[in-house]
Amino acid sequence: MADSEALPSLAGDPVAVEALLRAVFGVVVDEAIQKGTNASQKVCEWKEPEELKQLLDLELRSQGESQEQILERCRAVIRYSVKTGHPRFFNQLFSGLDPHALAGRIITESLNTSQYTYEIAPVFVLMEEEVLRKLRALVGWSSGDGIFCPGGSISNMYAVNLARYQRYPDCKQRGLRTLPPLALFTSKECHYSIQKGAAFLGLGTDSVRVVKADERGKMVPEDLERQIGMAEAEGAVPFLVSATSGTTVLGAFDPLEAIADVCQRHGLWLHVDAAWGGSVLLSQTHRHLLDGIQRADSVAWNPHKLLAAGLQCSALLLQDTSNLLKRCHGSQASYLFQQDKFYDVALDTGDKVVQCGRRVDCLKLWLMWKAQGDQGLERRIDQAFALARYLVEEIKKREGLELVMEPEFVNVCFWFVPPSLRGKQDSPDYHERLSKVAPMLKERMVKEGSMMIGYQPHGTRGNFFRVVVANPALTCADMDFLLNELERLGQDL
Amino acid sequence: MADSEALPSLAGDPVAVEALLRAVFGVVVDEAIQKGTNASQKVCEWKEPEELKQLLDLELRSQGESQEQILERCRAVIRYSVKTGHPRFFNQLFSGLDPHALAGRIITESLNTSQYTYEIAPVFVLMEEEVLRKLRALVGWSSGDGIFCPGGSISNMYAVNLARYQRYPDCKQRGLRTLPPLALFTSKECHYSIQKGAAFLGLGTDSVRVVKADERGKMVPEDLERQIGMAEAEGAVPFLVSATSGTTVLGAFDPLEAIADVCQRHGLWLHVDAAWGGSVLLSQTHRHLLDGIQRADSVAWNPHKLLAAGLQCSALLLQDTSNLLKRCHGSQASYLFQQDKFYDVALDTGDKVVQCGRRVDCLKLWLMWKAQGDQGLERRIDQAFALARYLVEEIKKREGLELVMEPEFVNVCFWFVPPSLRGKQDSPDYHERLSKVAPMLKERMVKEGSMMIGYQPHGTRGNFFRVVVANPALTCADMDFLLNELERLGQDL
Repeated sequence: MADSEALPSLAGDPVAVEALLRAVFGVVVDEAIQKGTNASQKVCEWKEPEELKQLLDLELRSQGESQEQILERCRAVIRYSVKTGHPRFFNQLFSGLDPHALAGRIITESLNTSQYTYEIAPVFVLMEEEVLRKLRALVGWSSGDGIFCPGGSISNMYAVNLARYQRYPDCKQRGLRTLPPLALFTSKECHYSIQKGAAFLGLGTDSVRVVKADERGKMVPEDLERQIGMAEAEGAVPFLVSATSGTTVLGAFDPLEAIADVCQRHGLWLHVDAAWGGSVLLSQTHRHLLDGIQRADSVAWNPHKLLAAGLQCSALLLQDTSNLLKRCHGSQASYLFQQDKFYDVALDTGDKVVQCGRRVDCLKLWLMWKAQGDQGLERRIDQAFALARYLVEEIKKREGLELVMEPEFVNVCFWFVPPSLRGKQDSPDYHERLSKVAPMLKERMVKEGSMMIGYQPHGTRGNFFRVVVANPALTCADMDFLLNELERLGQDL
Repeated sequence: MADSEALPSLAGDPVAVEALLRAVFGVVVDEAIQKGTNASQKVCEWKEPEELKQLLDLELRSQGESQEQILERCRAVIRYSVKTGHPRFFNQLFSGLDPHALAGRIITESLNTSQYTYEIAPVFVLMEEEVLRKLRALVGWSSGDGIFCPGGSISNMYAVNLARYQRYPDCKQRGLRTLPPLALFTSKECHYSIQKGAAFLGLGTDSVRVVKADERGKMVPEDLERQIGMAEAEGAVPFLVSATSGTTVLGAFDPLEAIADVCQRHGLWLHVDAAWGGSVLLSQTHRHLLDGIQRADSVAWNPHKLLAAGLQCSALLLQDTSNLLKRCHGSQASYLFQQDKFYDVALDTGDKVVQCGRRVDCLKLWLMWKAQGDQGLERRIDQAFALARYLVEEIKKREGLELVMEPEFVNVCFWFVPPSLRGKQDSPDYHERLSKVAPMLKERMVKEGSMMIGYQPHGTRGNFFRVVVANPALTCADMDFLLNELERLGQDL
């Protein structure tokens, strides 16, 4: 027999619920937001994994804990987490804390709904449509379709799946076995999700034909043409080209007009992975980097990166107006997408996706956009470009810093050459020794908590730093700090 | 040239940021949390789509808006959203608002990191491991692997992809074309994501062999055996069975022991889609419904459903200890998963997934679990069962309510037979007329905002209601209200 009272938890006690949430929110504001974005605080508080396990006391036990203990746990989680909103976090393709976007995320969490039907997400069904419309307009499309996906990798997979379905609608039912071998094309600088997606979708990584990139990391359209010919000669059927606007390491933009010409000639689906670079479309000054994107069939664009909307906010945009997304992914589950509803069931967009429950990812972007306007967001992009340029010029002025190349985006790639290696470019172990510098400095900066910068090898080049200038709160002083700090950390090397 | 000052946005002004967030948080507490869970308030505020568009003024414009306007927008978004934490929201397989889980979600959003490496998510890499360990222990495994996925549909896809990769590791590189036709088996009551997944993964929906379910919605193991034989006779290679613990509509639990016996005999991967029913493992009283789950190779379990952890929280659990997840999905991107780091790179779990950026989904569950303990969560499950039982007994007592079947879980399925149809079971249009009742009542309850209950047709049965008893704040009074309200809304039909 059931109790007639609600469970003895906070859920039945509005006063206690409010007190808990206000206390947690206080901790969040003080620790994560104020300290977490304050340059005089550490960007991270490094602990070895074993020590951190002890500090966090992660084990889940039979007995629950007191309010006071829970608040202490909240503090510890924040204390030992990396502060990605901090002005010294240059480590990833996202950085910074936009307060309006965060407000949107908090509201999203408090409403806790799923984006499948108008019935249970009326505001967000309409809002997603409007946000996607706005993004499409920036691409250059007055109509089309789209959806928010859980990240750019899955947006890219959607594009591949849609392209093969459009060409071979039977594959939804009959699978790939009945099809000829398919080939898709992308450059060697593309994001690794193209390979992962090909494997996951059953095409296999062999179906990905890797096109050459030039010394700046841009796809070479002539080699694309050549690769298409080679694939056909081997009996494969080319069906898609994935171009990249803003590559992960170098920040390169593929020449979309020339690639679109090739696609048009061969009747191939053009997907543009603009997860990183898409936000440049907001800048009148810089959007020429994506010239030709309006000729794409699909575009992946992650506002959680350069626009700092918050993880995750990843749009897949389509030029298609034939309901391809729903035809390709739909399964008309009768318990969810009833056809005898009292409103227009075309608003039940959940059958466009391969997920069932789907998070609301539009509100954070919408609210930030309402607060900033196109103009505010454009200034943000232009400022990021300007600060990246400032950083490049400062790098050129200093001894011991060597640019990998002149960037065209906000990825600034360079080597820190420590005093002991300066002027030794001709010694046989120079490159080997230089390659060890970035990992060593990375260890030092993380253990001090002074800043975080990513590094990687790339092609034949040994490890170099990649500074991502994305945080909207950055100033020239932060760029100066970054270089000074590298010099300080590396002066004895 | 870059400005030496940060952009003129709130990002550079900690006082303004704090003021904004405190104001938004106040709105959230008042409108979404207090009113949103108060039974005397509406569960939804229905508006026709065109009217709602006007009310929300969704358009994104060139100019940004004032703080005051932004706060008004926050209020409107909450006002017109469905309150899924409300005690009269019975519409979905999630309901209720757990304050600790919400606290975990707010902290997650404020830290805004991605779950790929120990470097940028040290706390959450360790925490995810611990939470997965706990979930595996409840399944009955002392070792294994796992990962949080963006929803149960993708967890199910992972299982299918892992099973085919384990059998044919070549398919990652070479794709499905080189393989024999594959067959996977699931019951006709399974979730629609199995079909969607088969299409997305390139297998095609034809590869899904639909096994009979008995009158209670449970897979018939004898028919599974028969279907396996038929598939083999047709030249297909069986590789996976997906059993369901807690079907979507009826809440049925497939007989896992008998199914595991079949899988063992035929050497098939056993996946259990326990997205809905997995949380029953916490109850000593009811966990027998999943007897045999420890024999599975993989389990999908969504704590965002019955445990109210918040969307999304979906774990894929594996018995595998051979690093299958990483071998199947990994691509060793050198810019992210550098091998020359200063800590154990086995902690960089991001290469286990097909996503790149991946949200932190463990904290909300961990924090709630710390606060409730196993015991608190167990009481919650037991209470849900008890309240569902109470509802069933009340349904039996009342005229005009007819159970579809005795439930074994917290899905309570029944028809409301309106006064004009009572005693007319033998009239030729009875079923047709009865089938129109649920959609009509649904429209009425939504337009009044008094409650939300899902309905659907099912097999040869016409539309019936499915009440999901999941919200931990529910009491018997809410069950009484539900039935009284149905009678009130349908008295003139």
